[in-house]
Amino acid sequence: PGAVNSPGAAASPSNENDDLVMATKDGVFSIAINRPTKLNALTLQMYRDITAAIERAGSDDSTRVCTVTANGDYYSSGNDLNNFAQIPPEGVQKMAEEGGEILRTFVDSFIKFPKPLVAIVNGPALGIMVTTLGLFDLVYASDKAVFHTPFAETAQTPEGCSSFLFPRIMGLSKANEVLLLSRKLTATEAMERNLVTAVFPHDRFREEADKHVQKLAASPPKATQASKRIIRNNMIPALLEVNRRECEVLVEQWMSDEFVQAMMKFFQRKK
Amino acid sequence: PGAVNSPGAAASPSNENDDLVMATKDGVFSIAINRPTKLNALTLQMYRDITAAIERAGSDDSTRVCTVTANGDYYSSGNDLNNFAQIPPEGVQKMAEEGGEILRTFVDSFIKFPKPLVAIVNGPALGIMVTTLGLFDLVYASDKAVFHTPFAETAQTPEGCSSFLFPRIMGLSKANEVLLLSRKLTATEAMERNLVTAVFPHDRFREEADKHVQKLAASPPKATQASKRIIRNNMIPALLEVNRRECEVLVEQWMSDEFVQAMMKFFQRKK
Amino acid sequence: PGAVNSPGAAASPSNENDDLVMATKDGVFSIAINRPTKLNALTLQMYRDITAAIERAGSDDSTRVCTVTANGDYYSSGNDLNNFAQIPPEGVQKMAEEGGEILRTFVDSFIKFPKPLVAIVNGPALGIMVTTLGLFDLVYASDKAVFHTPFAETAQTPEGCSSFLFPRIMGLSKANEVLLLSRKLTATEAMERNLVTAVFPHDRFREEADKHVQKLAASPPKATQASKRIIRNNMIPALLEVNRRECEVLVEQWMSDEFVQAMMKFFQRKK
Repeated sequence: PGAVNSPGAAASPSNENDDLVMATKDGVFSIAINRPTKLNALTLQMYRDITAAIERAGSDDSTRVCTVTANGDYYSSGNDLNNFAQIPPEGVQKMAEEGGEILRTFVDSFIKFPKPLVAIVNGPALGIMVTTLGLFDLVYASDKAVFHTPFAETAQTPEGCSSFLFPRIMGLSKANEVLLLSRKLTATEAMERNLVTAVFPHDRFREEADKHVQKLAASPPKATQASKRIIRNNMIPALLEVNRRECEVLVEQWMSDEFVQAMMKFFQRKK
Repeated sequence: PGAVNSPGAAASPSNENDDLVMATKDGVFSIAINRPTKLNALTLQMYRDITAAIERAGSDDSTRVCTVTANGDYYSSGNDLNNFAQIPPEGVQKMAEEGGEILRTFVDSFIKFPKPLVAIVNGPALGIMVTTLGLFDLVYASDKAVFHTPFAETAQTPEGCSSFLFPRIMGLSKANEVLLLSRKLTATEAMERNLVTAVFPHDRFREEADKHVQKLAASPPKATQASKRIIRNNMIPALLEVNRRECEVLVEQWMSDEFVQAMMKFFQRKK
Repeated sequence: PGAVNSPGAAASPSNENDDLVMATKDGVFSIAINRPTKLNALTLQMYRDITAAIERAGSDDSTRVCTVTANGDYYSSGNDLNNFAQIPPEGVQKMAEEGGEILRTFVDSFIKFPKPLVAIVNGPALGIMVTTLGLFDLVYASDKAVFHTPFAETAQTPEGCSSFLFPRIMGLSKANEVLLLSRKLTATEAMERNLVTAVFPHDRFREEADKHVQKLAASPPKATQASKRIIRNNMIPALLEVNRRECEVLVEQWMSDEFVQAMMKFFQRKK
């Protein structure tokens, strides 16, 4: 896809309009979301491009670790709600179903990724970019990061396997606070709830996270990948099914009156 | 059942002997245990009435959230041990089997409840009213609440799906401290162990809990109920089976010599 | 086996070369690792002897609780890497397969143990003696204990069902820090991550742990064992399969070049 640099390219974007910047170095394949003027919201094309990049990192023999981070103040404001603004001529159902399929494929690529997957959360994270954190093996956060899943406000439902993983990561009573009541978590709260591995002061958090990433990339690769496999593989069938079901529920929700009303309110507020 | 007010009635009891007080307001169906002179211990009739109330709240279209709380100092001292005091003419086995069936049906009603279920724990909680907390979606507690499951002291075994959910909520080594060693938890400890969502100072805890309940009741109902479904539904078959098994084990235990001895000790101490 | 005292013997070793010391008292069967000059590393014979002792404690009617602890400063430095130093005439594969079988049987004995199993961790713990802690019902630790699983450094992979239980005990992002990045945990950190039930100051930790063990041994045995059964039994088939799979992966790893290189580095450093 045009917007994606080939791995092996330098870390600088090959094109000023690139919404993703990718690079490989010392066995680390890094994906940086690079749409800071839109708070790193994800367009449909960005979902597709991240999916393709993750799949490539998985099959590329020289890649030992894959990281996801972002440029700018935000990690990501999540799904770009403008994705819902243009209804295609085929109607709302067509739009919802295509959106669901793009989402399902995106999340599947995280579920199936066979090597260590590390999130480096540089700032506020919203929606899908919070819910997918349960699919990362390690999550390092700046103390400027916050985590927010406003499903109730947008009449949406949990994705990214969060309906399954969040209760298992932080217990049901804390997961429901996040998923049903949109409780915003600070970086420290997210760490106390086991969603985040470790939090570092913003001015040295990339350096600290990189130390761990480099250690991982320098570890015996056969042992590391076998370790990830036995830790994760027994969950994969359940996670693929959860993802399928979450997307199905979300597609139905996207076609509901309450979702249309929530979106109208949102776009009116923005004007 | 006579002891239960119909929802829609005012919050005041229709009858001075009512052991439960129910009310509906703004989409919230609230059940208050109201037997403060007996520390809100549950009689067999109260199990049946709570089961019926929960089922009614689940099928009533105007109900969006169901809360369980209590009047008086205690949330509930759990099962009224006087339930074991009168052996029917048919003998101990008959009593144990009927008790097991009442318990199983009671717990099933929590497992299957399709809308947000919120516990508002105003004071000390014991036994079954602690173990069922894992089946609530959100648990708010006063800082005067304590949580105690004295199974070892009474020669009983875990119910309310706690044998399954407590290890998943707080980890095995902490769950066993509660379930095998009867460790009493303060409200803060219960929150640190993810059994409780949040703790508030006693003098404003109902107000704080109500804010969250009202937010939940005002959320888009289709999205909220779909969210609860995907979070909980994949556990329901396992929970129904766990509940069935827990009740079976408890019925057997109730017919054992060690249980009879524990009860005799208990009733002698009370005199 | 020669190196094992029969239960019922006094706590003092019957033989100066005994690597394990066993005793029974008031319903408590205690196993103490007793090879302090080697930091309580486990020889192949010790694996076999602990397995036999655990099985005996399980079937012995007078035993109500089984404890595992150690003499000396360490709880255990884990697998004695000298177990890999002498390659038998049949070759590396034979050695790896035998090692895998001894390990699988060892871990199975913990999985299947039908009574409360309590770890009393007196000092640093490494490898297999950390990973098996998830199979104990209660884990008490001295504040001098630390917990370390250096799989990456030794090109090995998780065992003791840690690949399955650690994510369920402490959440994926914290479990991976331990299992993939060899993060060393202090006693307090291990407690915060729910691997440890409680930590006590070193000078009185045995006394404190003993109080809980004695309470457990004095509890109604039928109720206590039935409680453990309903808490654990629904996991046993999954755990046996996880153990089988973990050993299979480890056997393969033991035959890999990267493992041989890691061992060579280790033995060179020791000289």
